[in-house]
Amino acid sequence: MEKTLIFGHKNPDTDTITSAIVYAYLKNEIGSHAEPVRLGEINEETKFVLNYFQAEVPRLVNKVATEADSVILVDHNERQQSADDIEDVRIAEVIDHHRISNFETSEPLFFRAEPVGCTATILLKLFKEHHVEIPKNIAGLMLSAIISDSLLFKSPTCTEEDIAAAEELAQIANVDAQQYGLDMLKAGADISGKTVSQLISLDSKVFDMGDHRVEIAQVNAIDPTEVLSLKSDIEEMLDLAIVEKNLSLFVLAVTDILNNDSTIIVRGAHASIVEKAYNLSLDNNIALLKGVVSRKKQIVPILTDTFKNQ
Amino acid sequence: MEKTLIFGHKNPDTDTITSAIVYAYLKNEIGSHAEPVRLGEINEETKFVLNYFQAEVPRLVNKVATEADSVILVDHNERQQSADDIEDVRIAEVIDHHRISNFETSEPLFFRAEPVGCTATILLKLFKEHHVEIPKNIAGLMLSAIISDSLLFKSPTCTEEDIAAAEELAQIANVDAQQYGLDMLKAGADISGKTVSQLISLDSKVFDMGDHRVEIAQVNAIDPTEVLSLKSDIEEMLDLAIVEKNLSLFVLAVTDILNNDSTIIVRGAHASIVEKAYNLSLDNNIALLKGVVSRKKQIVPILTDTFKNQ
Repeated sequence: MEKTLIFGHKNPDTDTITSAIVYAYLKNEIGSHAEPVRLGEINEETKFVLNYFQAEVPRLVNKVATEADSVILVDHNERQQSADDIEDVRIAEVIDHHRISNFETSEPLFFRAEPVGCTATILLKLFKEHHVEIPKNIAGLMLSAIISDSLLFKSPTCTEEDIAAAEELAQIANVDAQQYGLDMLKAGADISGKTVSQLISLDSKVFDMGDHRVEIAQVNAIDPTEVLSLKSDIEEMLDLAIVEKNLSLFVLAVTDILNNDSTIIVRGAHASIVEKAYNLSLDNNIALLKGVVSRKKQIVPILTDTFKNQ
Repeated sequence: MEKTLIFGHKNPDTDTITSAIVYAYLKNEIGSHAEPVRLGEINEETKFVLNYFQAEVPRLVNKVATEADSVILVDHNERQQSADDIEDVRIAEVIDHHRISNFETSEPLFFRAEPVGCTATILLKLFKEHHVEIPKNIAGLMLSAIISDSLLFKSPTCTEEDIAAAEELAQIANVDAQQYGLDMLKAGADISGKTVSQLISLDSKVFDMGDHRVEIAQVNAIDPTEVLSLKSDIEEMLDLAIVEKNLSLFVLAVTDILNNDSTIIVRGAHASIVEKAYNLSLDNNIALLKGVVSRKKQIVPILTDTFKNQ
């Protein structure tokens, strides 16, 4: 049987990695031959999760067309966030919860996107639709994805469906979501031993906004001052990325996961777009965005619209 | 409650019109306020269907942003096939079975596409997922859409899921699918009283293929020679459309619904793309494509690929 590769976005996070594993499990249960793979390094939070629920780390790949005729994308659809040779392979399915952009196919496909907080919440529906039982460790992986994407249910991206899914999954996985979730987020916020370069590429995505290419990175922190103390080194790395990738703007959001705010460091020729978008003045390239924790809901749409209307 | 408009593509066919009516029924049953509308004239086949199952003709609209904040697209996603002011309105949902192209949003949405032969087959799943009972006339509309898109289950786009859905819906609607289906297709193939201009715009769609804009129209016929006798007038109208819409290519497929072949009339500066795609020579702008009945599966992908690789 032909093998299908399943993978999430570059700079993988917990939802991307676990969704590849979980959906491959489901596909194999219903008679397909699917392998979960990853497009980048596993972060500390995801390591904690895979270790806790005894799941194997998916194999790292750079190109996909050489080893599969068709692929399934989870947790992303935009080409620049996908495999480098995504143009050379048939996309059979997409399971996602993001905006749709820079995506097209020449043939019909299975595309399931819902405006929920996490891919895992959609996967839970697919298990039910296919009447496949969810094993304890698979439930734990899905619960972890929801906790990660929702910052323990505090992000504005978190919907009632995500909360209900998490409750159901916590029961199957037999863990206390609050206690486990805090331990998991803390493991992810541990930046000890990370270089500045590693730090800004931990959870970073590139977006096309009109004619502009914009990178937005996010670092979760228990103590944001720890990250902000590295500001001048960070700025240097952002400037390097701007030149290398021809970016109009680079925004690094340092998100305080206990107080649910983000401090942003902004670089690039179009830094003033951020000032216009949030109606604020950057102070030495920095600003505090009160209550902002979601790149998807509170940063990407407003910057996209501001670039369009400038 | 805010009203949502639901509509299918321009030059509406039976699947587009009935899917708007059927999905609006489902949305209203589950507590939304939705109105089905249409972006163009109803064809003879659809008139027969709406009359048979006593459904109201949806209201004709040209622009949508002035009367709704959000819309739901059924049976299409490509912007150039949608409402003229689709850029000015929030797309809340898409239910479709076509390729995804020229579509993007700034925010996450509910997008449900499946590679099945008909939107109605996906809608049947949504009724089940929401545990909503399907009334007799609604089942009849959905059955009609499947018969229309699959040319009575003979098109290569028709999947096992479509056939199973049609069987289930025929039972609820209490009609014989074969007998009803043939009557319906015959009603649609009746070209008496149609001008050549009406004929070529009955079921016509515009596609972006690389840097080229291509229009592909399809006319179902019981007796193709009846349509082909109008060849010189048809060519004149195609040439007019090519100039007006700046098209690289216009293909009119006259589909023999009893023998399941199509005769194509080809015009435009890039007519040779068709010769290359199907490895044939046009004879006085005409060729017979044996076994070709599906624009979506047997014409659009091969032309798209040939334009890309020229």
